[in-house]
Amino acid sequence: MAMKSDIEIAQEAQLRPITQIAQSIGLSEDDIEPYGKYKAKISLDVYRRLQKENKPDGNLILVTAISPTPAGEGKSTTTVGLGQALGRKLAGTGKTSMICLREPSLGPSFGMKGGAAGGGYSQVVPMEDINLHFTGDFHAITAAHNLLAALIDNHMHQGNALRFDVRRITWNRVLDVNDRSLRQVNIGLGGVTNGIPRESGFDITVASEVMAVLCLAADEQDLKERLKRMIIGYNVDKQPITVADLGAEGSMTVLLKDAIKPNLVQTLEHTPALVHGGPFANIAHGCNSVIATKMALKLADYVVTEAGFGADLGAEKFFHIKCRQAGIKPSAVVVVATVRALKMHGGVEKTDLSTQNVEAVRRGLDNLSKHVENVQMFNMPVVVAVNKFPTDTDEEMNVIREWCNEYGIAVALSEVFTDGGAGGEELAEKVLDIVNNRPGGLMYLYNEEDSIEVKIDTIVREIYGGQGVQYAPKALTTLKKLAEMGLTHLPVCMAKTQYSFSDNPNLRGRPEGFTIMIRELRISAGAGFVVAITGEIMTMPGLPKAPAALQIDLLEDGKIIGLF
Amino acid sequence: MAMKSDIEIAQEAQLRPITQIAQSIGLSEDDIEPYGKYKAKISLDVYRRLQKENKPDGNLILVTAISPTPAGEGKSTTTVGLGQALGRKLAGTGKTSMICLREPSLGPSFGMKGGAAGGGYSQVVPMEDINLHFTGDFHAITAAHNLLAALIDNHMHQGNALRFDVRRITWNRVLDVNDRSLRQVNIGLGGVTNGIPRESGFDITVASEVMAVLCLAADEQDLKERLKRMIIGYNVDKQPITVADLGAEGSMTVLLKDAIKPNLVQTLEHTPALVHGGPFANIAHGCNSVIATKMALKLADYVVTEAGFGADLGAEKFFHIKCRQAGIKPSAVVVVATVRALKMHGGVEKTDLSTQNVEAVRRGLDNLSKHVENVQMFNMPVVVAVNKFPTDTDEEMNVIREWCNEYGIAVALSEVFTDGGAGGEELAEKVLDIVNNRPGGLMYLYNEEDSIEVKIDTIVREIYGGQGVQYAPKALTTLKKLAEMGLTHLPVCMAKTQYSFSDNPNLRGRPEGFTIMIRELRISAGAGFVVAITGEIMTMPGLPKAPAALQIDLLEDGKIIGLF
Repeated sequence: MAMKSDIEIAQEAQLRPITQIAQSIGLSEDDIEPYGKYKAKISLDVYRRLQKENKPDGNLILVTAISPTPAGEGKSTTTVGLGQALGRKLAGTGKTSMICLREPSLGPSFGMKGGAAGGGYSQVVPMEDINLHFTGDFHAITAAHNLLAALIDNHMHQGNALRFDVRRITWNRVLDVNDRSLRQVNIGLGGVTNGIPRESGFDITVASEVMAVLCLAADEQDLKERLKRMIIGYNVDKQPITVADLGAEGSMTVLLKDAIKPNLVQTLEHTPALVHGGPFANIAHGCNSVIATKMALKLADYVVTEAGFGADLGAEKFFHIKCRQAGIKPSAVVVVATVRALKMHGGVEKTDLSTQNVEAVRRGLDNLSKHVENVQMFNMPVVVAVNKFPTDTDEEMNVIREWCNEYGIAVALSEVFTDGGAGGEELAEKVLDIVNNRPGGLMYLYNEEDSIEVKIDTIVREIYGGQGVQYAPKALTTLKKLAEMGLTHLPVCMAKTQYSFSDNPNLRGRPEGFTIMIRELRISAGAGFVVAITGEIMTMPGLPKAPAALQIDLLEDGKIIGLF
Repeated sequence: MAMKSDIEIAQEAQLRPITQIAQSIGLSEDDIEPYGKYKAKISLDVYRRLQKENKPDGNLILVTAISPTPAGEGKSTTTVGLGQALGRKLAGTGKTSMICLREPSLGPSFGMKGGAAGGGYSQVVPMEDINLHFTGDFHAITAAHNLLAALIDNHMHQGNALRFDVRRITWNRVLDVNDRSLRQVNIGLGGVTNGIPRESGFDITVASEVMAVLCLAADEQDLKERLKRMIIGYNVDKQPITVADLGAEGSMTVLLKDAIKPNLVQTLEHTPALVHGGPFANIAHGCNSVIATKMALKLADYVVTEAGFGADLGAEKFFHIKCRQAGIKPSAVVVVATVRALKMHGGVEKTDLSTQNVEAVRRGLDNLSKHVENVQMFNMPVVVAVNKFPTDTDEEMNVIREWCNEYGIAVALSEVFTDGGAGGEELAEKVLDIVNNRPGGLMYLYNEEDSIEVKIDTIVREIYGGQGVQYAPKALTTLKKLAEMGLTHLPVCMAKTQYSFSDNPNLRGRPEGFTIMIRELRISAGAGFVVAITGEIMTMPGLPKAPAALQIDLLEDGKIIGLF
């Protein structure tokens, strides 16, 4: 019998009332703000109360992956499945597990099929709500972002006291929709009453700096301070203009007052999950909110979270940006690999993945080994999770297991997609063993006071395995500006293809001898990092020839079809 | 001591849990979907159950007004206050009252101060939430509207099988923000991968036809059918292309599945209120949703609702569009007037309104008398509510009272702004008297099968008191198209200035001898009306020189300031 689709599994799930999920982590009905029967927000007053209680933090487990391939690796599914498996293992011990995930973006759900949070029997639910408007966080970010944009154009229209250079407004508008026609637009057309004509564009909401700011903010007032620092353009003397100069931070904070509260939901096995925030993983750091993670660490003994893309991007940013800013230290790192993806790294085409190819798996281990080494450079203990697909053979699986054993790396099979938490028990055991017996201590690869160039050079040489860095003239100009502005203490957020350690997406495996070209540096002063752009980074996706939107429907019985 | 501001009053209010408000109208905890502690959505399953119960509908009372002036008339405040006053009057009788209001738009809250739902001691609460994101309905409409726009541009980009004429796309994009720079834009710029370059624009979300459709839909499937009928542009043969041709209705309905559920809140005196939907009152019909009104009529014995602008626009559209489509019949109509507004209609400047001027009030009665006559033409009993301001003198008030007495029109003083429900007891008594003793029966002024021209002519001559109608060439072309398309059975939605019976906003009072110029006709085939544009209609507001946004802030104690 064919396995059910994600949406079928989710629709058949017996959810528990969210008040009951809250209770399971010690939260009363008064501590949560329900959004329907199965979603709730947790107020930051609860967060502050938990911080004061002086209870030690739980253990944080980061799930990351090898370099993604079109074969898929199943990172979110493993995160959810591991959370469920830990719940099983801990049952009766008085200890608890939780999950922290990013919120999915609405736009892509109507483009290509897929997305969602987890898959198979390892999903967070109610999956339709989570994948649609959820609790409105992204809409609030859209509103705050676009109010700022309107205030900028209105300021110029009403006399331009701040002397904005109309050619140097860096603040785009955003919408949570895949809409290539909005990437580049001319606005303010039609005459005097319609404002100042200028070139501009729209990004997808998850690419908004407001999203990154919300996800890194410590609380409402820190949110406001970060919003104030955001650079929105430059004046005719090429000096930066910030949100504080315009005075828009108060309104934006008011618009974000609920979006900053983490969202509580559950997995298919009723493991509590905080799903909150979802910044892009290229021009931003790609992790759920700091507030959600820190709250979960006060609510549960083991918290499983994930970072975007492969470990070269996701884990590196998780450590250098999120952990450093938030002062949190993970206890273990899971690197997810699949036989199919390793085969692609070993040179197999996507169409040939279902044929056994032990040699290709072996060659693909190059990619896994570099990611494992990288995580170890941060002084973090590693478990390799092999996410099983039906086409994988025992011989292929054994190649990975033997390699791990040879190098003393913990390894576990994961069948959480087909079996839920029961399919992740080996993984949970290995994780618990490492957390309890091999205490690591996060070490950073660069110092905050290092120059931007040193930071980039460190990441390129140590994490990517490259030979060096080149800078385009535009990037060199920004380097000077960063020094003038006194912002060289910021960490670097690499915007690189996720498909390769290099900046060439076609170089799978473990490429060597390459250099990385920094085309452009962008200053996210509110989020608190400098984005290093190494290729064409698309911040507004388009719809495909046959968009998923045309298959999605609401049936007469209220059932949704075609979504995922 | 000066009276407190609206937000101060609202912030000091002791709200009851929304479950308790639901209980007061016979709804259990399972019947509602809470959004925080003081807001809830009511599922359409409850609506269908109520419809099946065969309980007779309650009495519907429409609150409308004289022609608005900058002096203000207080229609929403009177609506809320009357609902509260009816609650007081009915206490102990076993009968109940409810209120149905439109949701406020987010955008304008950050432009000019003001807005909100009601004022003083007659407000719906939690007012900050209601005026911010509320339960996300408008964001859902924005998302559905813009998904459709993206699908249109993507369709053209991917081969244009429907043969859209790129110059004749009528579907704009929308955002719930005051942003003049987006009124007219060029999109699809920057080369082949960014789609087809063309002229377009953004309206504010409340101007979206999706909003009008949601507010007139009978249920989810009717919503889908209406969405299907919406015309999004014309092909190269000038034939209309609809949402059904594109196949976007399923996705849009899924995005609107929660937005279609009415929102339950309470007034400052705990009167239950459904606040749901908020279409523009010019290019749309300006009433809260049909579903909310029909649901309230099953839940309470007396339901007070309002329509946009003065009775010439709001009440006319309420009767001819909303009541006719929904098959509902109001029992009484309240026409709100103020001494100050009548003085302006009597020729006084805004700066002189605080000086007693009995003669000006008398002259201004011209405006009131025409509105009262108009309501009576629909065979509806009328009560005039005089909304008292501190500067009004007894002599001025008496002019209105005496005139009403002379013509046998029920009249009552309303002090609901300063005194809440207690200030509306006379009004409530008069309303109850009329509802119980003078059963009217709604009569329409035109038949559905009348031509569009006859419909417009009827409204202009009978309601506005004009001499006739002229059509600009563009409007004449659309008249022909409407006949070809077989759409002449649709009602007309007049988009006229609210400040005058004529199309000249400066002609206050009761102008005569004017003709109305129909510049353009727009087909809202999903909403089910033809919009007759009689002047410059602004569908995207701008921000003023000193936007309210710059005063709004979230304080450290969590309090919002500067909003209203």
